[in-house]
Amino acid sequence: MVGTIVIAQGGGPTAVINQTLAGVVTEARRRDPRTRVLGALHGVRGVRDGNFVDLTAVPERDLLRIAATPSATLGSTRDKPDAAYCEKVLAGLKRAGADAFIYIGGNDTAGTQAILADAAGGSIAMVHAPKTIDNDLVENDHTPGFISAGEFVAAAFLSVDLDFRALPGIYVGIVMGRHAGFLTASAATWRMDEDSGPHLVYVPERSFTRQRFVDDVRGVMDRHGRCIVAMSEGVVDTYGRPLVESLVPREMLERDAHGNIRLSGGDLGQAVERMLSEGLPGKRARVDTLGYLPRGAIAVVSAVDQREAFRCGEFAVEAASSGGGSVAVVMDDDRMVPSLVPLASVAGKTRHMPHDFLMADENRLAPAGLAYLERLLPRKFDPAKPFV
Amino acid sequence: MVGTIVIAQGGGPTAVINQTLAGVVTEARRRDPRTRVLGALHGVRGVRDGNFVDLTAVPERDLLRIAATPSATLGSTRDKPDAAYCEKVLAGLKRAGADAFIYIGGNDTAGTQAILADAAGGSIAMVHAPKTIDNDLVENDHTPGFISAGEFVAAAFLSVDLDFRALPGIYVGIVMGRHAGFLTASAATWRMDEDSGPHLVYVPERSFTRQRFVDDVRGVMDRHGRCIVAMSEGVVDTYGRPLVESLVPREMLERDAHGNIRLSGGDLGQAVERMLSEGLPGKRARVDTLGYLPRGAIAVVSAVDQREAFRCGEFAVEAASSGGGSVAVVMDDDRMVPSLVPLASVAGKTRHMPHDFLMADENRLAPAGLAYLERLLPRKFDPAKPFV
Repeated sequence: MVGTIVIAQGGGPTAVINQTLAGVVTEARRRDPRTRVLGALHGVRGVRDGNFVDLTAVPERDLLRIAATPSATLGSTRDKPDAAYCEKVLAGLKRAGADAFIYIGGNDTAGTQAILADAAGGSIAMVHAPKTIDNDLVENDHTPGFISAGEFVAAAFLSVDLDFRALPGIYVGIVMGRHAGFLTASAATWRMDEDSGPHLVYVPERSFTRQRFVDDVRGVMDRHGRCIVAMSEGVVDTYGRPLVESLVPREMLERDAHGNIRLSGGDLGQAVERMLSEGLPGKRARVDTLGYLPRGAIAVVSAVDQREAFRCGEFAVEAASSGGGSVAVVMDDDRMVPSLVPLASVAGKTRHMPHDFLMADENRLAPAGLAYLERLLPRKFDPAKPFV
Repeated sequence: MVGTIVIAQGGGPTAVINQTLAGVVTEARRRDPRTRVLGALHGVRGVRDGNFVDLTAVPERDLLRIAATPSATLGSTRDKPDAAYCEKVLAGLKRAGADAFIYIGGNDTAGTQAILADAAGGSIAMVHAPKTIDNDLVENDHTPGFISAGEFVAAAFLSVDLDFRALPGIYVGIVMGRHAGFLTASAATWRMDEDSGPHLVYVPERSFTRQRFVDDVRGVMDRHGRCIVAMSEGVVDTYGRPLVESLVPREMLERDAHGNIRLSGGDLGQAVERMLSEGLPGKRARVDTLGYLPRGAIAVVSAVDQREAFRCGEFAVEAASSGGGSVAVVMDDDRMVPSLVPLASVAGKTRHMPHDFLMADENRLAPAGLAYLERLLPRKFDPAKPFV
């Protein structure tokens, strides 16, 4: 039995990352009411600095309310500890008397935890719990946070398509997603029929060229009289570089501690507007950046996503209690049944959309991709087809 | 009793404009099952060109499904008829045997209908039914479409504020609204406490200066450690010109048939990003353009808004049946009780936020503004306050 669990949240928040936290606290109590659970504020930074909140005695009612609240209630961080930072985090865990450190996050967070695990040498159980709207953690069928965000995106594009049937034109919605196009592809999950948008989907897994884009849009306009486009922030040029790199002067590119370029939907959006006004002059075109809206939208939280995230938290405590090791909780195809893999097998790795999820020559979802998304995001709305 | 009603939808779609259409068809049937209801496709353009869909016999079940579907099922238009166009529309109404023309739309639509009313000279009852997410129709307490869009915006900013508590920085969300700031101000309706965002609200009713903006943001960052901003697309400079006019070269400005400049959230967003990176270098800042997302979001449709919009449709038929005239249905403070005003009193006029809705010296909602918005948008979410 674990005496003290330290828990932290890393990377971008999601709609359900607090469910996982609540699952940890609940399961720890169930196993032994004396288990101490300490929440570190702002991820490993809180561990390093000794900033903890004691979750041991948080009343059940408050815990349920925290669970239902999007975004990381403990705060998050994008710090990437180097060796010296790592030593301080480890010292912080020891000072806190941690028997286990449960870190909820994505692949960068898992990478941080893997470094910590090496430094700890087995003295503290290291358990990673999955979380990312990008759905880009290897070994997982899907990740907590993705379903809620995916439903937001699917509903948004269904709505915009209806809007553009009424007042036709070109619409480009730019969606978060650095390396993996799952969230952007979600846009096409709730299409009503073959005439429905999004008609084009651009993801980081396929290279993007300006000429091809303009031709694609022109073709869709000819066929459908309007064109709805879902585009990932992380689309890349033919050299595999993020498109924003070629759009923004090098000295203006911002990078985070993990070396990730700050992808600005705004920069990409401006560039896309220019491409359209030059390539298809006179056409009504509009670019919106969905940005942060899908990732913790309080109005669109999936109950299934909530339950899965909670279950991952419970399971992380089971893993910590069954003794030592450095493991990652992963979501299997069968819902509600997570399993364990070595931490190293997910740390710092990125899962991409399988090649057969997209049509070979077109920027559209293929049957395999649609089947995967329809399994995770069952249709929630059945609007009437407009008369136009 | 009316024999033939022609109905059309104009301007930007909303989440509930089809409720009004369903209200018209339902009430027409109730009064006399023989009443013919013809829907013109794409507003007055459909009337002019004889493009109608016969709604007389649409099954009740289908009508309910249409009502529940956002965006204009008949299609919409931004055409602004001149005298010649007007003659053709009037001829189209006569060919269709119209006893009444019910046009659902905002102030531009009402302006079009007022011109038609003059040309018709009382031969056809002209009834305008209100619709706009901008809430900028004079004589109305509020307008159908606003509540659903407002709830979307309120929920979005509540969510983004939670997100930025976890990973602090500056966030600017750009919201539709050409002349009136009601929708942008909605962002502040569901704030949890004094620490909550949006901390700053910029609306077209107050002039915007770059220096003031940067100072405002710096002050909020100092006080709260993060800064959430809700900004209207239609913010104006000290000369009262839309800010995008001074940002975009004159020859690139697009105008619609009503002479409205195309407000690009993208252009404004880029400019705001530049202001922040130059004025507050090194701060994490992100600008999203909400654009079309709030106006017909299928996942966030208010039941109250739906009922009010339906009631406006019913009431428009009552007005048409009680004989002739050119009138506009308006929403009173008492919900579900619309009333009538002369069409000319709403046509082409813009309602602005009352002066006392905003604090005198600050870009924040004043108690009167908050009270108004809280009456229309009762709080729907009660999240837990994060530990950070």
